[in-house]
Amino acid sequence: MNREEIIKEYPELKAFFVQIQKLKGQFDIGFLKQLNRSLPFADLLFDRWERAKLLGFGEGTSIYDSSHVFGDVKIGKNTWIGPFTILDGSGGLEIGNNCSISASVQIYTHDTVQWAISGGKEPYEYAPTVIGNNCYIAPNSIISKGVTIGDGCIIGTNSFINKSYPSGSKIAGTPAKIIQ
Amino acid sequence: MNREEIIKEYPELKAFFVQIQKLKGQFDIGFLKQLNRSLPFADLLFDRWERAKLLGFGEGTSIYDSSHVFGDVKIGKNTWIGPFTILDGSGGLEIGNNCSISASVQIYTHDTVQWAISGGKEPYEYAPTVIGNNCYIAPNSIISKGVTIGDGCIIGTNSFINKSYPSGSKIAGTPAKIIQ
Amino acid sequence: MNREEIIKEYPELKAFFVQIQKLKGQFDIGFLKQLNRSLPFADLLFDRWERAKLLGFGEGTSIYDSSHVFGDVKIGKNTWIGPFTILDGSGGLEIGNNCSISASVQIYTHDTVQWAISGGKEPYEYAPTVIGNNCYIAPNSIISKGVTIGDGCIIGTNSFINKSYPSGSKIAGTPAKIIQ
Repeated sequence: MNREEIIKEYPELKAFFVQIQKLKGQFDIGFLKQLNRSLPFADLLFDRWERAKLLGFGEGTSIYDSSHVFGDVKIGKNTWIGPFTILDGSGGLEIGNNCSISASVQIYTHDTVQWAISGGKEPYEYAPTVIGNNCYIAPNSIISKGVTIGDGCIIGTNSFINKSYPSGSKIAGTPAKIIQ
Repeated sequence: MNREEIIKEYPELKAFFVQIQKLKGQFDIGFLKQLNRSLPFADLLFDRWERAKLLGFGEGTSIYDSSHVFGDVKIGKNTWIGPFTILDGSGGLEIGNNCSISASVQIYTHDTVQWAISGGKEPYEYAPTVIGNNCYIAPNSIISKGVTIGDGCIIGTNSFINKSYPSGSKIAGTPAKIIQ
Repeated sequence: MNREEIIKEYPELKAFFVQIQKLKGQFDIGFLKQLNRSLPFADLLFDRWERAKLLGFGEGTSIYDSSHVFGDVKIGKNTWIGPFTILDGSGGLEIGNNCSISASVQIYTHDTVQWAISGGKEPYEYAPTVIGNNCYIAPNSIISKGVTIGDGCIIGTNSFINKSYPSGSKIAGTPAKIIQ
């Protein structure tokens, strides 16, 4: 793909494109030198802690650019929210302090199952979800609407959580069950 | 990470970076006020329905910026295509009306298994995939090349679909099976 | 959402936004015409092979913009690294030649389980991970810290790999097991 070729007839656009490339180039090198990491373009540009602050999340909490946040989402302090996550607060979502919300985790408070199979006649369904403090939610896990997870729970990789669990639970599977 | 430090020697670049930050800042606030949501930078900038229109998808269909669309993909009306999705039409993909293609769903019409394990000697393999109308495909589900899914099917979270199912099926698991 | 409305009071910002929209518009059309694909904004702008080169990966290796690369990651030649991937080299990661690292694959060399459930008192844990040559890692698979995968392995969709496997293994499941 020759990007210069595509915009060659638009000198103003070409100058703009050159600026974007330079900006990315400088940040790419800066992040590699200072933090030994290489990030998507938008994460090079924008700060994870500032976004969390704008959203009213607690001190020390950070959220990657690729995370989607819908509706009413309350999050405590020092929680890490990874890339490719969905935090759906359309039915009300609360997450505590010091959690790891790993990459590609999706936490829901609505679903569109009935909407889709009724050909759009049935409404979306909503219910609030709560995650306690000090929880580790492993990559790719999906948490359904209406679920309450207590403090200090571990949720395994690739899990689908469709009911509530008390503090200290170790949960995995699709659908999830208590393990150990 | 001090982003200003990285580009301090380039006044033109700094001015450009300030504009990008302002643009994001205004859209962040605008989306929170008007829609009560916080989106990745590119989804703040670009409209989901306009992208679907450019791709020739049906009226009312929308597709997030992070979705990747390859080759020949035909999609009907009022279908919702979530973030982090892959719609691979390199072998020909059709999706009907009023479907929910949830976040992180990947639908394929090719695979590179033989290519990889042969050290790049064997070619990619292709076969067309079809999804009917009114289907709900839950988050993280992967649909293989050559699969036909009928109308009104529900595909569960974290499923891997490697064969075809008739209309009205409820399917889940890796590999998937009929449930209930 | 009316984006023009949000920035109407800032003429300079509006001009900047118009440039971004034009740039995306031209690249959208260029990619559809030349490559018959539609990509996220950042992948329209930036080259996958150039990013791989900057990271010191081998010739012919490419990596999408949405991939996150942390710490010490070494990758051989002609390996395809898909979108939404995490390559965590904080504990040291090596990947060989001619691999398919499918979309949404996450490969780790650290975890934060003990950190999260101890309320941030325990440290992160690290161990190196190695992937051989000619491996196919299917979408959504997660590979844990400390794992060694030999040459020519196939790892199935939605798998969670938490131990090592020799060359030629075919592995799937959560947690993964040898299949066939």
